[in-house]
Amino acid sequence: MHYTLSYIAKAIGVEFKGEDIKIEGIHTLSDASASQLSFFTDSKYISELSQTKAAAVLIDAKHAPLLPSTTIALISDEAYLKLAEASKFFAHSLSIDSQKPTLGECCEIAQSVSFGKNVILGNHIMIMAGCYIGDDVTIDSGTLLYPNTTLYHHTQIGKDCIIHSGTVIGCDGYGFAHTKQGAHIKIHQNGIVVIEDDVEIGANCSIDRAVFGVTWIRKGTKLDNLVHIAHNCDLGEHTLLAGQVGLAGSTTLGRNVIMGGQSASAGHLRIGDFTTIAGKSGVTKSLAGSQTYAGFPAIEHRLWLKIQAKISRLIKKM
Amino acid sequence: MHYTLSYIAKAIGVEFKGEDIKIEGIHTLSDASASQLSFFTDSKYISELSQTKAAAVLIDAKHAPLLPSTTIALISDEAYLKLAEASKFFAHSLSIDSQKPTLGECCEIAQSVSFGKNVILGNHIMIMAGCYIGDDVTIDSGTLLYPNTTLYHHTQIGKDCIIHSGTVIGCDGYGFAHTKQGAHIKIHQNGIVVIEDDVEIGANCSIDRAVFGVTWIRKGTKLDNLVHIAHNCDLGEHTLLAGQVGLAGSTTLGRNVIMGGQSASAGHLRIGDFTTIAGKSGVTKSLAGSQTYAGFPAIEHRLWLKIQAKISRLIKKM
Amino acid sequence: MHYTLSYIAKAIGVEFKGEDIKIEGIHTLSDASASQLSFFTDSKYISELSQTKAAAVLIDAKHAPLLPSTTIALISDEAYLKLAEASKFFAHSLSIDSQKPTLGECCEIAQSVSFGKNVILGNHIMIMAGCYIGDDVTIDSGTLLYPNTTLYHHTQIGKDCIIHSGTVIGCDGYGFAHTKQGAHIKIHQNGIVVIEDDVEIGANCSIDRAVFGVTWIRKGTKLDNLVHIAHNCDLGEHTLLAGQVGLAGSTTLGRNVIMGGQSASAGHLRIGDFTTIAGKSGVTKSLAGSQTYAGFPAIEHRLWLKIQAKISRLIKKM
Repeated sequence: MHYTLSYIAKAIGVEFKGEDIKIEGIHTLSDASASQLSFFTDSKYISELSQTKAAAVLIDAKHAPLLPSTTIALISDEAYLKLAEASKFFAHSLSIDSQKPTLGECCEIAQSVSFGKNVILGNHIMIMAGCYIGDDVTIDSGTLLYPNTTLYHHTQIGKDCIIHSGTVIGCDGYGFAHTKQGAHIKIHQNGIVVIEDDVEIGANCSIDRAVFGVTWIRKGTKLDNLVHIAHNCDLGEHTLLAGQVGLAGSTTLGRNVIMGGQSASAGHLRIGDFTTIAGKSGVTKSLAGSQTYAGFPAIEHRLWLKIQAKISRLIKKM
Repeated sequence: MHYTLSYIAKAIGVEFKGEDIKIEGIHTLSDASASQLSFFTDSKYISELSQTKAAAVLIDAKHAPLLPSTTIALISDEAYLKLAEASKFFAHSLSIDSQKPTLGECCEIAQSVSFGKNVILGNHIMIMAGCYIGDDVTIDSGTLLYPNTTLYHHTQIGKDCIIHSGTVIGCDGYGFAHTKQGAHIKIHQNGIVVIEDDVEIGANCSIDRAVFGVTWIRKGTKLDNLVHIAHNCDLGEHTLLAGQVGLAGSTTLGRNVIMGGQSASAGHLRIGDFTTIAGKSGVTKSLAGSQTYAGFPAIEHRLWLKIQAKISRLIKKM
Repeated sequence: MHYTLSYIAKAIGVEFKGEDIKIEGIHTLSDASASQLSFFTDSKYISELSQTKAAAVLIDAKHAPLLPSTTIALISDEAYLKLAEASKFFAHSLSIDSQKPTLGECCEIAQSVSFGKNVILGNHIMIMAGCYIGDDVTIDSGTLLYPNTTLYHHTQIGKDCIIHSGTVIGCDGYGFAHTKQGAHIKIHQNGIVVIEDDVEIGANCSIDRAVFGVTWIRKGTKLDNLVHIAHNCDLGEHTLLAGQVGLAGSTTLGRNVIMGGQSASAGHLRIGDFTTIAGKSGVTKSLAGSQTYAGFPAIEHRLWLKIQAKISRLIKKM
């Protein structure tokens, strides 16, 4: 799927100057290729402007001069809203047709399973009743999907995974641009979810697809039930998330992170390798690895215990 | 569906005096019509007794004289239990037959979708595999239901909505009357859910139908994944609820309210327009609008920050 | 399903001495029968070693002499990992065939419902569209399953229960043994879930099967939506769990316990009869009955109120 830049610019109402070019998608300043559109809406990323390879960037007039000469500036006071409008052009076109997947050896697929187009399955895969497998999904050998599981289009599942019932993988991330009147315009979530080998995901979890790029669940990671993983999270290898954990967007977990039940992390944080986070904690800033944290806002566990001890003494005097 | 008042009174074992009348449903004192039954079980509503238009009211002997002369008192020491028993008569009669809906133009409906009776769909609606659409549901034009979504009977969905997989709309609210022996008698949830235009609801959410009346999700509101909305909530326009938010029964949110991940509200509260509630907060009393709150119990965010700063200083001394 | 002990020992790489015997399953030291394998991995259970009736026990060399002479010691430094490996032999063999259940009188079963083998249904049962009922499930008379509900194999449901849409019962508990390299080896969850009579379970809940033995939901208990019950929990009669409650593994609740929305309990705790736990609380130790608790860690509600009052006074001075 592609559009000319002039077509998109006209459709979203921004000025376009320069030679026309084919646009094949949208990505961040650092990851956009020479055939992709990007956007500048957060001054945190100002240093990336001069380095971007993007074909064109939605940007305010003031910062436009910082772009490389090879990148076209699409100037707007509301670049984020324009991004939302442009994202629609690259949204996957859904269909309700059920197709036959490409099957490996010895697969067992219940009759009520629905497949989109271009699904590719490895060997020894079992997909139980009522599952939905969207367009262009790939599932590698030895994986088991329990009944009533839903995989949205373009999801990639590795070898020997187990996905329990009711879990939804690849649903849209929660991304909106806001109008001055207070309405919310959908940023179409055009990225994907990649689940690596030996991952187990409990019942009734939700794992959002990336807005652009990939939401990753890396090798050997195990999720309990009712866990929520927002768009663009990256979960390291052999990580353990207990029941009802929630991760906001773009959280990065290292390897062998452990998060207790009902704990959560705010978005855009990095939690280091071998970090343990106690149940019900709320992480509000990035954490170095190899330590245990507790509380909300989460602090080092030994400090949290000291505070609890103080509170206990206080209570005894009451 | 209707019953005579004498029939209901006899069935639930309360005395009935006066002229018999046709009863078509149950509602609160303030909202019951002249053909509905009501109940008085909470002294908070004492001022509504003299104003009620209800045909009859389940009530204790002491308060019965406060009713208007046009309303019949059904006297009981256990009015709430009797209400639970009476609610059964107005419960929707479920069926497993799959019917053909009334379709608008250009709808795409997957073959595995099941419809109850009297479903009415607008134009350009897509309903993907494995969805269930209950009796008397209406869905307006341009709405998209992802696979394995469930709409209970009488749910109303507006235009251009998006409902993600695994979400359940119109399931029973959590309402029980309690016997003296500690058992819980179901209050049949005979209200509905109304979702207005431009609403997006994430994956694996649950939105309970009202006990009587309506659970409202108003125009332009967006819910993330795993959100729980209890019976009789009313969510204002353009409100944003992040992942794993929970609202207890009869919570009213104004317009453009924002609630962070894993935050919650106790029931029967009113949260004003443009209120922002930080992640993991717990709201325990009604909040005026246009401010930011945090913590549990939720307080003004600037105070919460001060307390956190104090705790930080305390920790440094430890 | 059974294996000889010598076969299992060889397969998991532990030394086997003594007369060979047929092994029919795995259970804890206290509950294993003379044809079951057990394990000793936690010194908390040291007193149970001499009492066990298990045919054989996975155990370290140091503690092996504490076993009765009738029990064979399978000696390993990594008994928990060996348990995980052995658990695989007793995992239920899944299949995607849809079978006809044994039906009582007047059942209404939607056409899209899938049944495993040996399902037995009582009278007057309604199972709505898209449900999956696994092998060897039994459902007693008068029970209603709303659409898109999933019951894993061997689940037992009592009389007059109501299970709302999206709920998953009998999914695997979250149990893993950990290698020295930090990978997690699945302990196959070979127990079951038993739901007694008059239980109502809300939408999108998850109730894990036991690792060995039973996860119990006892008579008259009512769960709201999005509740998570981990493996081997035991919920007493007439207990009430509000929306988004989470119980970690092996939590035992007495009768008429009430837990408010988003509250939780750590694992292996006992919460006494008639305990009330406020919303958002986190229980971290066992609680005597007939009292109200709040906060995290949960303390007596009256103390929690005092602390909140102190904090309020502190805030006013800020």
